[in-house]
Amino acid sequence: MRQAMVVPVGEADAGPEVKAVYDDIKATRGIDAIPNFWRAIAHHPPLLRRTWETLKEIMAPGALDPLTKEMIAIAVSATNGCEYCIRSHTASARKLGLTDEMFGELMSVVGMFNETNRLAEAYQVEPDAAFFRRADDGGAK
Amino acid sequence: MRQAMVVPVGEADAGPEVKAVYDDIKATRGIDAIPNFWRAIAHHPPLLRRTWETLKEIMAPGALDPLTKEMIAIAVSATNGCEYCIRSHTASARKLGLTDEMFGELMSVVGMFNETNRLAEAYQVEPDAAFFRRADDGGAK
Amino acid sequence: MRQAMVVPVGEADAGPEVKAVYDDIKATRGIDAIPNFWRAIAHHPPLLRRTWETLKEIMAPGALDPLTKEMIAIAVSATNGCEYCIRSHTASARKLGLTDEMFGELMSVVGMFNETNRLAEAYQVEPDAAFFRRADDGGAK
Amino acid sequence: MRQAMVVPVGEADAGPEVKAVYDDIKATRGIDAIPNFWRAIAHHPPLLRRTWETLKEIMAPGALDPLTKEMIAIAVSATNGCEYCIRSHTASARKLGLTDEMFGELMSVVGMFNETNRLAEAYQVEPDAAFFRRADDGGAK
Amino acid sequence: MRQAMVVPVGEADAGPEVKAVYDDIKATRGIDAIPNFWRAIAHHPPLLRRTWETLKEIMAPGALDPLTKEMIAIAVSATNGCEYCIRSHTASARKLGLTDEMFGELMSVVGMFNETNRLAEAYQVEPDAAFFRRADDGGAK
Amino acid sequence: MRQAMVVPVGEADAGPEVKAVYDDIKATRGIDAIPNFWRAIAHHPPLLRRTWETLKEIMAPGALDPLTKEMIAIAVSATNGCEYCIRSHTASARKLGLTDEMFGELMSVVGMFNETNRLAEAYQVEPDAAFFRRADDGGAK
Repeated sequence: MRQAMVVPVGEADAGPEVKAVYDDIKATRGIDAIPNFWRAIAHHPPLLRRTWETLKEIMAPGALDPLTKEMIAIAVSATNGCEYCIRSHTASARKLGLTDEMFGELMSVVGMFNETNRLAEAYQVEPDAAFFRRADDGGAK
Repeated sequence: MRQAMVVPVGEADAGPEVKAVYDDIKATRGIDAIPNFWRAIAHHPPLLRRTWETLKEIMAPGALDPLTKEMIAIAVSATNGCEYCIRSHTASARKLGLTDEMFGELMSVVGMFNETNRLAEAYQVEPDAAFFRRADDGGAK
Repeated sequence: MRQAMVVPVGEADAGPEVKAVYDDIKATRGIDAIPNFWRAIAHHPPLLRRTWETLKEIMAPGALDPLTKEMIAIAVSATNGCEYCIRSHTASARKLGLTDEMFGELMSVVGMFNETNRLAEAYQVEPDAAFFRRADDGGAK
Repeated sequence: MRQAMVVPVGEADAGPEVKAVYDDIKATRGIDAIPNFWRAIAHHPPLLRRTWETLKEIMAPGALDPLTKEMIAIAVSATNGCEYCIRSHTASARKLGLTDEMFGELMSVVGMFNETNRLAEAYQVEPDAAFFRRADDGGAK
Repeated sequence: MRQAMVVPVGEADAGPEVKAVYDDIKATRGIDAIPNFWRAIAHHPPLLRRTWETLKEIMAPGALDPLTKEMIAIAVSATNGCEYCIRSHTASARKLGLTDEMFGELMSVVGMFNETNRLAEAYQVEPDAAFFRRADDGGAK
Repeated sequence: MRQAMVVPVGEADAGPEVKAVYDDIKATRGIDAIPNFWRAIAHHPPLLRRTWETLKEIMAPGALDPLTKEMIAIAVSATNGCEYCIRSHTASARKLGLTDEMFGELMSVVGMFNETNRLAEAYQVEPDAAFFRRADDGGAK
């Protein structure tokens, strides 16, 4: 088993600040156990608190639905090559309805644009003038 | 203006292999002019052909809708910091209905997971056992 | 001039949520004008608020001093190749006392470990057992 | 155990060029065993020699102290996701006085700026004019 | 053993589209067993087909010889820190004649330019005018 | 014109340590003017000296020829998206014989493996046992 860089904070060992976050994670996510990620960063309670509060707010339903957000999280994690994150977000996305077919298309898109990103950089392609027309560019807000 | 690494292939100068791809790009996308990206890689016709054929197939409607695919493309491009690609895919996504509100949420998610990716790596967090349960893992290998 | 992806929010056009953040940025930093970064993300007020609140908390003096934190920010930004961020954090660090000599040493360290990171990956080097001894591994917290 | 890409060079098997470097590593660092990184790259003696000489010079005390340099090394390694490097530099930093509290703040800064780096890129934010004022810009070019 | 994100497709379980690709991989490469990479992406047959067809075309002898192409693949994979890819392409390159001496020089170059890439970015160096002279820049645009 | 982070060191303003390196760069490369990269890092003479000495040694003919080394440098720089480096190494490679056809194949390989790197990571593919057989693994450790 991989040893984390710090001693993870078990639920029984959590001080009040950490315990409050752990309780909110379990209630919000409907889970019984705290994932290893949160246990690791809990060694520094402000990091745990800020990270959880931000993530909770960002992943709430809004203009984008939760499954779309998890797929975007997978795309970012695959581009960065973060194993924990790929596995974590794929597990969450599957609960929200991600099928193998969708995963295959997601991977196709992620792979493709990691390729074209490098081609656009390597050829030093000038952005097209058409990209700069904005629907709202009639004036300052 | 930024000079590309190769002399871009204008429409009037395209040989038959390049012209066939250019015609298909314009017909498929419903556009009148070939974007700079395709003009640059057209200096090597097999690269143009392969890249266009793959992209055309991947971006066609499937298990994921075109707007979701463009948002994933933006997420990848933002993570890699590719200006051409960010501008290109955002322009495409706006045509498909991406609003400023959706762009703001997309950026929030992309920013957040670029942060947590590094935390998961830096703390060397062990993936949770729960991530390894697959809906289809009774299947053949 | 580079056009941002959204219409930046000028100070005169800021709604109450954005204005409150802008006022806090100016008071906390002791500056008269809102930097372009905040104006851009202000198009999505929750992203502005969360990002500023987190940054303000993180950059406050703590176990690490502000100059060290800015140098770490430069190291991250140089590794990622983000021009805005390199220029922004270097400007902040110079105000806090970063000299050219310190910048040269910082760059030497950043360059060096971007090199050795790839060597360690490319050679697939096994972490030494000695790295796993922790000062605090005598027991769970 | 992970197998390196090449047969590592044990101390008993080192030729004169490698042995000289190994001896200097042990003397400079005050250690008894050669870490795996050096054993791996020792298969190509000029790479070992150049890498060690550069690292030795860069990590010597100067305008930045050794602990600051190791924290910068951790920041680079976490941004790149290099496990060996994260573990190695964190072990070195702990010997130099890095506490869990400092590690938590370091991680907070590294995570934060990996997020804002992507936001600055994704929004294509123009650097502020204020960033371009240099203390020494009256000088020769 | 690391569990892949999907159930890999064994040769006995391959449908006709996958089987056709598997047969072509074995014939083209002169191997008896399908590597794990292809088995994983075969869960989404169009991804398998497109990826194999592109790779087969790209790696065929052309203006660059196959060993040079494999070394470039190693350079990309080392820069991205992809273990599977580093191991896979190094195994292929060794079959094509890559010696330990060549691997050491390859790594030296890869390490070096990962360093100078960051220095060029961090110092925000302006490209020299001399870089923009092209042998073919009398041509049409 | 892009302003570098430090005042570049012109040839007329170089102190003895910098001048010695500048003279060696011009003699070794057969050029009349010092490229901007070296002028920038010359603000910190030890960084200039170390970087030049390492680069000079690495790029000398050895088991790999200079053109191959420049192509590897392009591959690394394109993967990292470093404009200065892409332009600089492509200019050098063209002098050594890189044709547009070779550049097109190089880009095809670089693009392709940036794609498959992400697929291998995203699918969490286990390296094949065959990759671990080394020609020299009878040797000492």
